[in-house]
Amino acid sequence: MSARIIDGKAFAATIREKVAQHVARLSDAHGITPGLAVVLVGEDPASEVYVASKHKQTVEAGMRSFEHKLPADTSEADLFALIDRLNADPEVHGILCQFPVPDHLDERAIVARIDPAKDVDGLSVTNAGLLAAGEKGLVSCTPLGCLMLLRDELPDMTGLEAVVIGRSNLFGKPMAQLLLRENCTVTIAHSRTRDLPGTVRRADIVVAAVGRAEMVKADWVKPGATVIDVGITRIPHPDKPGKTKLLGDVDFEAVREVAGAITPVPGGVGPMTIACLLANTVTACCRAHGLAEPEGLTA
Amino acid sequence: MSARIIDGKAFAATIREKVAQHVARLSDAHGITPGLAVVLVGEDPASEVYVASKHKQTVEAGMRSFEHKLPADTSEADLFALIDRLNADPEVHGILCQFPVPDHLDERAIVARIDPAKDVDGLSVTNAGLLAAGEKGLVSCTPLGCLMLLRDELPDMTGLEAVVIGRSNLFGKPMAQLLLRENCTVTIAHSRTRDLPGTVRRADIVVAAVGRAEMVKADWVKPGATVIDVGITRIPHPDKPGKTKLLGDVDFEAVREVAGAITPVPGGVGPMTIACLLANTVTACCRAHGLAEPEGLTA
Ligand SMILES: NC(=O)c1ccc[n+]([C@@H]2O[C@H](COP(=O)([O-])OP(=O)(O)OC[C@H]3O[C@@H](n4cnc5c(N)ncnc54)[C@H](OP(=O)(O)O)[C@@H]3O)[C@@H](O)[C@H]2O)c1
Ligand SMILES: NC(=O)c1ccc[n+]([C@@H]2O[C@H](COP(=O)([O-])OP(=O)(O)OC[C@H]3O[C@@H](n4cnc5c(N)ncnc54)[C@H](OP(=O)(O)O)[C@@H]3O)[C@@H](O)[C@H]2O)c1
Repeated sequence: MSARIIDGKAFAATIREKVAQHVARLSDAHGITPGLAVVLVGEDPASEVYVASKHKQTVEAGMRSFEHKLPADTSEADLFALIDRLNADPEVHGILCQFPVPDHLDERAIVARIDPAKDVDGLSVTNAGLLAAGEKGLVSCTPLGCLMLLRDELPDMTGLEAVVIGRSNLFGKPMAQLLLRENCTVTIAHSRTRDLPGTVRRADIVVAAVGRAEMVKADWVKPGATVIDVGITRIPHPDKPGKTKLLGDVDFEAVREVAGAITPVPGGVGPMTIACLLANTVTACCRAHGLAEPEGLTA
Repeated sequence: MSARIIDGKAFAATIREKVAQHVARLSDAHGITPGLAVVLVGEDPASEVYVASKHKQTVEAGMRSFEHKLPADTSEADLFALIDRLNADPEVHGILCQFPVPDHLDERAIVARIDPAKDVDGLSVTNAGLLAAGEKGLVSCTPLGCLMLLRDELPDMTGLEAVVIGRSNLFGKPMAQLLLRENCTVTIAHSRTRDLPGTVRRADIVVAAVGRAEMVKADWVKPGATVIDVGITRIPHPDKPGKTKLLGDVDFEAVREVAGAITPVPGGVGPMTIACLLANTVTACCRAHGLAEPEGLTA
């Protein structure tokens, strides 16, 4: 039997649609428009592409997009002055600084400068603490996206065995917290895990976020398991000279014969990330105005 | 073969000794004395006993102890005014409010009011976030105590399978974070875990923090595993009428025949908690003065 392929691209479109509907309601009922400010320091081409894509999707959802492009030699003081202005600006509900930043800037200090209530990337210590404490905060976009895909696939995850491969602050740790909230029995595996195949084999839910192409093999996967592939590795395209191709952490063609459901790469988790950024911005806007949170768009 | 019994009482004494030595050095070299403020609202008899015990051990370690006993009907405003004074007081390096507090007071709000740098109970959202982010903060005393016992027993935990039973903010979640930092493969189990015996059976390290007397049976435990019993249940004493007896979450007499090492109840984890409170106070004091942290007393 072949796994159901989870169409992250289509699902992300439904999330963006929900966001747009909520934005329209906020505007009609309260005259409020959610606003997202994106700060880009320097001219990294990949970052330029991401920022343009965020801008486009923000505007398409009916929200305000504020782009701030700063030269690569911007001082920390100038960057912080901008963040302080954005923190204080009532039109701005979400703030993110596109990483990586030039070496003379400290990513942790930048994140710490952003008001946690506007930290729509969910990267601050405060938001990590709120997640750990089970309180309302803003959850990092990629794990939030994976949670939404999983909830759609498995409406009740209670008692399921979940294995998260990877323990980064950005993804693995918040993902584990979210699965624990869903009442999964959660295992966190990483590079020091002794028997990774055996650990993965016991999982009803596998979430792989390592960055090693096709590492998770078919005989690691329990028949019927739900497999979420977060990893992204870019390789030279085997057939098209000069082009590249994306691979996930999961040996997709083989694992799809065993799993119950699986996300492809590309087109699985990837498209969910920006959709969740928009969702977080609407959530932050509603909270800033003391309004009910958008349904289906939060953790 | 019978397990090594981990003597938490003796180990806690060595921790208190280390604390006292560090306190003496701080005094000799810098003229600084760490200070711990304990706030007790109302007259719960168990809390009075704990607070007296904390006071005694603080003084014995050469630190300053500031006790603040407030009437049960103290308003939140008055309690917060006291906390604000303690936050601002340079002689006070650690602050804790003994819980439970009377119903009209909100424990979360009280914890949030304490300066995270003085939150020696490690209960604040900020300290939970710092732990999750792998940054320096103050770690809740009971998980810190368990970590110290485990490090003494297993100097290198890399790659070991650890199962934590219980997922409270106070214990289970921070314990899991600490074991992850030690490079264990960590599983968090709880009341919704489907096959708890099977889950526990794969663990090299079992940490039980549930509060169900003698729940963990001998045939749940992998031979040679290290078992840390955090649970405390008080029952009527079977032989001494009118007296009570403490039981842990582990069926001690049977499990000691299987495990490699095991903490008893009482005399295992229990005595470590106050010792770690003293350790956290010294750590907070060193940080407040920009001095090197005490070795062997932090996470
Ligand atoms: N789709 C998206 O939008 C999106 C978003 C975020 C990330 N990603 C992708 O997800 C992947 C992970 O991202 P990240 O930021 O979490 O990366 P990261 O910070 O590099 O973390 C990678 C994790 O994988 C673990 N690991 C490394 N080698 C391993 C091995 N052989 N076996 C088991 N675990 C191993 C590491 O363990 P140690 O901790 O022991 O070193 C680490 O915890 C990357 O490919 C990234 O591009 C995609
Ligand atoms: N020695 C010390 O100094 C010290 C310090 C702190 C705590 N303790 C003791 O440690 C124990 C736990 O404390 P806590 O504050 O963490 O308690 P808690 O907040 O009540 O949490 C108990 C945890 O156990 C889980 N649980 C309940 N029944 C279970 C079952 N049948 N199977 C598996 N898991 C189950 C619960 O799961 P759900 O989340 O699904 O409900 C919960 O996560 C208590 O006995 C407490 O007295 C001792």
